[in-house]
Amino acid sequence: MSSEIKRRGLMLVLSSPSGAGKTTLSRLLLESDPGIALSVSATTRAMRANEVEGRDYFFVTPDEFESWVRQDAFLEHAVVFENRYGTPKGPVEDALVSGRDVLFDIDWQGTQQLKERAREDLVSIFILPPSHGELERRLKERAQDSDDIVAKRMAKAASEISHWPEYDYVIVNRDIARALAQVQAILEAERARRQRLIGVGEFVAELTR
Amino acid sequence: MSSEIKRRGLMLVLSSPSGAGKTTLSRLLLESDPGIALSVSATTRAMRANEVEGRDYFFVTPDEFESWVRQDAFLEHAVVFENRYGTPKGPVEDALVSGRDVLFDIDWQGTQQLKERAREDLVSIFILPPSHGELERRLKERAQDSDDIVAKRMAKAASEISHWPEYDYVIVNRDIARALAQVQAILEAERARRQRLIGVGEFVAELTR
Repeated sequence: MSSEIKRRGLMLVLSSPSGAGKTTLSRLLLESDPGIALSVSATTRAMRANEVEGRDYFFVTPDEFESWVRQDAFLEHAVVFENRYGTPKGPVEDALVSGRDVLFDIDWQGTQQLKERAREDLVSIFILPPSHGELERRLKERAQDSDDIVAKRMAKAASEISHWPEYDYVIVNRDIARALAQVQAILEAERARRQRLIGVGEFVAELTR
Repeated sequence: MSSEIKRRGLMLVLSSPSGAGKTTLSRLLLESDPGIALSVSATTRAMRANEVEGRDYFFVTPDEFESWVRQDAFLEHAVVFENRYGTPKGPVEDALVSGRDVLFDIDWQGTQQLKERAREDLVSIFILPPSHGELERRLKERAQDSDDIVAKRMAKAASEISHWPEYDYVIVNRDIARALAQVQAILEAERARRQRLIGVGEFVAELTR
């Protein structure tokens, strides 16, 4: 019997402005690949009716959240609309050690924090919309709001998009099936990266004994 | 009209010991993907009956070869059985600038030379055979030779295999279709690497105007 090559899991970040198709891409990726699961964040905001503790979020009190911050138990954390959100280290590290991959739905600021703490494990992809017109159309469709609100969302999208140079890969989402195939190819390729593989030395020793 | 994102081509190296299926993988990859072509080497050895100048090799005299070396016109070069072989820089750089990818069939020494000269452009994959028994079987099949010659080939394979830690990706070729899919995924992923993309800044400026 030859020995087996295993691998350390990886952390996959998909970032994009709203209106670039990230949510759909994430869902399709999770459905198509049982080897990757969405990271579950901790939050101080109240649980909503349709949410499940530990599936949608870990719901914690502000004091608990602050105590986790002090214990350095988050990979990244942020404040959004006065609520705090953070990625607990423990479950992510457990997944990586078991060779399972973790998908993150975070913005450029969260990605920067992850980068500092998880350099080799992190794979980051920035998704771009195909054109100005298409981005505007998607923001309007989703908004059903006034031109003013659409303009604000466009400005927010522009600000998010300006961070594309901080990512490992850039994909233009012209066609969802094509963009999904690209994300899947990146995931498959990164799984074969030498640095993530465990036991190659032993495997090779057995090959050439 | 939004501006277009282009990309610089990449240099793909597949290396392996003989008997790991590299030749078959290279052929299938070239057949399946018109965006990548095999690099044509220059050599001082005599042209064989079935060979074509510029397709199989650029056939040059030892003096011409030496003059190219002095002009630093090779990306890598080596001596094999008293003949010299080298990869001319010009055609490779032309391909990369045009966004076409180039496949190299070179050993670990050639790969090391390429690495020094083409750091960002180079993507290197090491192909491992699935087991000691399978490697031996393939070396015997191919050799139809004495045990002594097979043992020598096995020793040579072991020496080549010891260089796996110098490669970006490692693939175990248990199944040719699966290994091909992995090589194709790596190629597709690497084509979406941010550093290879040209014009993203302009594309993004147009998106967010």
